[in-house]
Amino acid sequence: MKLSTATSMLVAARAEAERLGVNVCISIVDAAAWPVASIRMDGALLGAIDVSARKARTSVLFQMDSADFGAVGCPGGEAYTLENTNGGLTSFGGGIVLKSDDGTVLGAVGVSGASVDGDIAIGRAAARALAV
Amino acid sequence: MKLSTATSMLVAARAEAERLGVNVCISIVDAAAWPVASIRMDGALLGAIDVSARKARTSVLFQMDSADFGAVGCPGGEAYTLENTNGGLTSFGGGIVLKSDDGTVLGAVGVSGASVDGDIAIGRAAARALAV
Amino acid sequence: MKLSTATSMLVAARAEAERLGVNVCISIVDAAAWPVASIRMDGALLGAIDVSARKARTSVLFQMDSADFGAVGCPGGEAYTLENTNGGLTSFGGGIVLKSDDGTVLGAVGVSGASVDGDIAIGRAAARALAV
Amino acid sequence: MKLSTATSMLVAARAEAERLGVNVCISIVDAAAWPVASIRMDGALLGAIDVSARKARTSVLFQMDSADFGAVGCPGGEAYTLENTNGGLTSFGGGIVLKSDDGTVLGAVGVSGASVDGDIAIGRAAARALAV
Repeated sequence: MKLSTATSMLVAARAEAERLGVNVCISIVDAAAWPVASIRMDGALLGAIDVSARKARTSVLFQMDSADFGAVGCPGGEAYTLENTNGGLTSFGGGIVLKSDDGTVLGAVGVSGASVDGDIAIGRAAARALAV
Repeated sequence: MKLSTATSMLVAARAEAERLGVNVCISIVDAAAWPVASIRMDGALLGAIDVSARKARTSVLFQMDSADFGAVGCPGGEAYTLENTNGGLTSFGGGIVLKSDDGTVLGAVGVSGASVDGDIAIGRAAARALAV
Repeated sequence: MKLSTATSMLVAARAEAERLGVNVCISIVDAAAWPVASIRMDGALLGAIDVSARKARTSVLFQMDSADFGAVGCPGGEAYTLENTNGGLTSFGGGIVLKSDDGTVLGAVGVSGASVDGDIAIGRAAARALAV
Repeated sequence: MKLSTATSMLVAARAEAERLGVNVCISIVDAAAWPVASIRMDGALLGAIDVSARKARTSVLFQMDSADFGAVGCPGGEAYTLENTNGGLTSFGGGIVLKSDDGTVLGAVGVSGASVDGDIAIGRAAARALAV
């Protein structure tokens, strides 16, 4: 994941957040879960900084969106306690795994600070910028 | 748990994983929960490294397979929150406690990266190699 | 510390890094030590991600550049062990405290990945962009 | 870093340890600091498990052997406190960074349990196996 790619995704994600009228934190990690770039929009919840980072980390470590991860790692799910591994993961939406056309995992984006649906929409806007 | 024993178990577990066509992480701990050997197969989820270690740890600390532990340590279980002790334990299958013929606990193996059933099958393959 | 301000600083810092021919990580925190934005340039050492964040944190928590902090918080210094507080601080250069014209602390920037002198130069380039 | 490569390195490192008559722990990580494989030889100090992992992590995060890192990250060194970043690093020998012929970092090996000189010799034996 190049910084220029991450920057393009941040621009797209931020534009979507502004369109929705919300203030969020956005984190982008590479395929090995190392941070590439992150921003906190003015007015975003302080608590959202860590959440956005964990959503991105969750998505890349298990190669699935955090919403899908949450269906497995939760009380009553197939793998309850999975969410407590790897330093603490995120079992709700807003983390989006990023893949190339051939399915190779390239990294992930995590968004937090809006509603879950809003976070997901913003993360998807970032993912679309990757595909360009 | 000798390293040569752990190595034999890793070989058997890996062969079973290859037979199943899955890529997993496998961790083996001794009776005091200290790591003896671990491997990550090519293509295994990064998130599975920590999970395999925690499954092995869970199984040896409570002298039961992690699937059995999960029936107790979960919301609604007899000992809900037990899964949050000891640095975080695992309440689903893939950790197998290893015992000698007379029932002495020798250690445990933890497998992660496939389905829960697949992880269990691979862990059992490792356990059978111990018995040889 | 507005995101737009932090972004301007990142642009200036990155330009200075490119001028020096080095690849660094750059973190910007607000006056309460919360992250605002961060980037990792292509090719930067993975270890520098955490270091850049700690340098920024050190500088804002003690309202001094990390190089000045390092003269105090070190074996033989006036406050040896101060560097072990607050989750672990940084006793060498590359963290720059950011102040307004009237001396109000606005935040800090932390740079890591080049030589200490290079990190300081890049951090100062970021600080100059704040002043514009 | 493929598992087969890591396994070859472990075999070579273990042979060197046996030649020296010492019992060590050996950890191999990939270029992003994620574990690939690790072993603890019979009789190795329990404390060496974590040390071997940290040596490998130190070497890959800063792309230098841990002995060289220790010359910088120590009281009186150019970057005192650097050793306290990234979860705690290792400022003495036994971690060897692994590079391809063109200088690309491929991962690192960490050895602990013998003397520092012994640990380094064992780590270098592992590195030679990579080059084959």
